[in-house]
Amino acid sequence: MALLVVGAVAFDSIRTPHGKVENVLGGAATYFSVAASRFAPVRVVAAVGEDFGEEQLRVFQDRGVDTTGLERVPGKTFRWSGEYLGDMNEARTLETHLNVFERFSPKIPSSYLDSEFLFLGNIDPVLQLHVRRQLPKARLAALDSMNYWIRGKLAELKKTLAEVDVLVINETEARMLSGNFNLKKAVEVMQKMGPRIVVIKRGEHGVTLFSDSGIFSAPAFPLDEVHDPTGAGDTFAGGFMGHLAKAGDLSDANLRRAVIYGSVMASYAVEEFGLARLLRLTPEEIEARYREFKNLTHFDA
Amino acid sequence: MALLVVGAVAFDSIRTPHGKVENVLGGAATYFSVAASRFAPVRVVAAVGEDFGEEQLRVFQDRGVDTTGLERVPGKTFRWSGEYLGDMNEARTLETHLNVFERFSPKIPSSYLDSEFLFLGNIDPVLQLHVRRQLPKARLAALDSMNYWIRGKLAELKKTLAEVDVLVINETEARMLSGNFNLKKAVEVMQKMGPRIVVIKRGEHGVTLFSDSGIFSAPAFPLDEVHDPTGAGDTFAGGFMGHLAKAGDLSDANLRRAVIYGSVMASYAVEEFGLARLLRLTPEEIEARYREFKNLTHFDA
Repeated sequence: MALLVVGAVAFDSIRTPHGKVENVLGGAATYFSVAASRFAPVRVVAAVGEDFGEEQLRVFQDRGVDTTGLERVPGKTFRWSGEYLGDMNEARTLETHLNVFERFSPKIPSSYLDSEFLFLGNIDPVLQLHVRRQLPKARLAALDSMNYWIRGKLAELKKTLAEVDVLVINETEARMLSGNFNLKKAVEVMQKMGPRIVVIKRGEHGVTLFSDSGIFSAPAFPLDEVHDPTGAGDTFAGGFMGHLAKAGDLSDANLRRAVIYGSVMASYAVEEFGLARLLRLTPEEIEARYREFKNLTHFDA
Repeated sequence: MALLVVGAVAFDSIRTPHGKVENVLGGAATYFSVAASRFAPVRVVAAVGEDFGEEQLRVFQDRGVDTTGLERVPGKTFRWSGEYLGDMNEARTLETHLNVFERFSPKIPSSYLDSEFLFLGNIDPVLQLHVRRQLPKARLAALDSMNYWIRGKLAELKKTLAEVDVLVINETEARMLSGNFNLKKAVEVMQKMGPRIVVIKRGEHGVTLFSDSGIFSAPAFPLDEVHDPTGAGDTFAGGFMGHLAKAGDLSDANLRRAVIYGSVMASYAVEEFGLARLLRLTPEEIEARYREFKNLTHFDA
């Protein structure tokens, strides 16, 4: 089933203890699309500038991502630069140039309107709601957000949350949004805002899924080296939503599998800078790490 | 099989956002004994003062804990007071009075010398080694330590680590001891120091077990309220070692089960202040939460 993602496409400059890259293709919608397209047909809505060329376009098109909604506008593509220090759990933003993203107003091509799965990447909640309402019949609408919107546009964010099924959010931001330190209570508060499914991203500590059917907790995959955590959360979301859209199965058992596929994709993403590892990932590697996750968490009843 | 624990018995005064208690029985050896005695016969070695009375002794003896090695010496029992703020991941120590613990020199009763399982609680590594060497034939010797000894007695700690099979340690302290942020690398470094099995306690993020057979990651049990985290790590160690001593089975499958039993015990311990919840825990409750852990982590292959 078709999966629509709206969000940022960017050029990133990233420094970590393992090295640095300059102006590599990134952005939430990019990581999401590259990950999700391994599982289901993806349609992307984003704005890019005149510096977005054939090479970048091919990253999407080579994976069958529908780029009808990739709007090219005068000016430069969104640019972000940041660095990770120490345990690399959080990026320190060095520079942000919104460029064409500043006046981004997502336009949904008519050919996208039958998308059954929808992912509202981390953009202004007013725009997220605008997109959500153009796809009233989507079977599953999910949303990501961040501290910037929780602090600056809380009322708008709550209005948008009321109309989505799934919230995918970082642990720290869940606490901020809910005003609760305790994660179970934080999730109860957020579920009352709208989404019946809440997925808490905990970085190196994994992911916890809360739904009507209970709680499912998955660890992060233990890696020898995390080279670059950029895009890990969006890659997770891509694997998670991609797997759901592939099967169209929203059962608890399949939500759990989707969490693992999301975790598999994120675990590969951080092994190298930018999209590099994801772009040459094989189907066999995806399945192999899925099995490794099973071995990592299994114990006898 | 008999399980010997050496460590602190204390009176704790604890303040958390949920309330406070004064001078309640605590200490690593106490939490460990209470938890482990649900699974296997426990023998305790510790020093207590003249303020340690019948009521406290009964906590051990009612659970069949052998208190031959509980040495009563002139003076007061070790006292600790601390408070937990915010997310309660770390205690702020308000006062420490070592009292009789200051000159603690563990004496192993001859009736303990055939103990097959040994847990060296978090005390001076010189004393840990002294105990370890008195039980050369123990099938499994485990050790806990902390930042205080890593900073102050690193050479002694390394000497002790060379003679144990299992290291049970907090995530932060694992990084400190190994000089590595990356957990897999940290564990490799620590395994080279001696222990072939390393158990990383990650607080609200659960526990990760590293052994020859690979890695096993268990989440913490999601609770509505954590009332008092005091003793959670020692309770985990008690459940973990207790289960191993019960079955005497050191297979990977049984180590994994032991991690879950330890996590079950710790999850109950933090529900109420001090030992309160552990003391009235039923066998049915232990098994019920074990099954809940299965449901929390299970996904289809």
